[in-house]
Amino acid sequence: MSAVSTPHVTPTPARRDAEATKAAILKAARHLLARHAHADITLKAVADRAGVSPPLILKYFGNKDTLFARVMSFETDADALLAAPLDGLGPHMVRHMLLSQSEQGADPLLRIVFAPLHGEQGDILRANFRTQVTDRLTARLTGPDAGLRAELAVATLLGLGVMYGIARGTEVRATAIDALVDRYAPTVQAYLSP
Amino acid sequence: MSAVSTPHVTPTPARRDAEATKAAILKAARHLLARHAHADITLKAVADRAGVSPPLILKYFGNKDTLFARVMSFETDADALLAAPLDGLGPHMVRHMLLSQSEQGADPLLRIVFAPLHGEQGDILRANFRTQVTDRLTARLTGPDAGLRAELAVATLLGLGVMYGIARGTEVRATAIDALVDRYAPTVQAYLSP
Repeated sequence: MSAVSTPHVTPTPARRDAEATKAAILKAARHLLARHAHADITLKAVADRAGVSPPLILKYFGNKDTLFARVMSFETDADALLAAPLDGLGPHMVRHMLLSQSEQGADPLLRIVFAPLHGEQGDILRANFRTQVTDRLTARLTGPDAGLRAELAVATLLGLGVMYGIARGTEVRATAIDALVDRYAPTVQAYLSP
Repeated sequence: MSAVSTPHVTPTPARRDAEATKAAILKAARHLLARHAHADITLKAVADRAGVSPPLILKYFGNKDTLFARVMSFETDADALLAAPLDGLGPHMVRHMLLSQSEQGADPLLRIVFAPLHGEQGDILRANFRTQVTDRLTARLTGPDAGLRAELAVATLLGLGVMYGIARGTEVRATAIDALVDRYAPTVQAYLSP
């Protein structure tokens, strides 16, 4: 560890370790939630992936539900997904989805697919998805029926993620991504700038 | 019950009851598998929905896994989904998906979304989905890249199902279906007859 020069703003090494551990736990939970149904994920699986013990997760986050409630935001995913000018947004979104799946095994946007149909957890995920992804895309669009078009553009993207991340069962090869972007981007773009 | 006129081909009333009960159990399992992750579904939930006791399910099907193995075919779903001439198949598929969700709460095709990523059950579902849905659609298409185009057409359809069946959390109103078909069918059809 480097020297702590300004102790009143920089955390102590112990505090930094705790923060790094919490971040690792959140990252592990986020990873698993994009790949498995809520009920399929055990605290032990999160702990194994984060390299910590299950009791440490309980100490930091209380229980599985309170832990998962912490990783239900789509804000940073939408930042990355929508980081392109409108006239090139379709290709960017398609490439982003396929690259996430190729490099990380799943795109975090697909957490919405595993949102439980009943219960508070699913309701929170759905509300976040709407405001943080669909509504945010809607605000970028011009012309009639912007809300519906945003919804359908996101639908095409979720379908791509489900097909190549779940239904096929084999990950997209990096070399296949360009061809898929060429084929599928016009489908998405048609809803963004009709 | 009506009289049994040909006992050697028509089942006895008791046999008929057993068959009807088994069918009700399979229907209930199928219904739940299109809406929930495998691990979220209890034998009791299947039993409650079928109007039978959990031990009766065990008697007929052994256990939850062997029961679910019985409802993993997409054959009849694909029969209905693909029942239109190629030049009108896109609108038919979109309307079929939205009607299923509106009338039954979910389309059975969405069982693929909940296929567990690991384990035999997910592998069977994925293999069935490929041969019974995607490959069967591929065989209907003419022109280059038929396999890829079928895959992308199915992707757009799965995305529609995820958006309106899972992500939005409210069912599509029957009166909204025509407008959605008009908007979305060209997206699907573009892959079927480019």
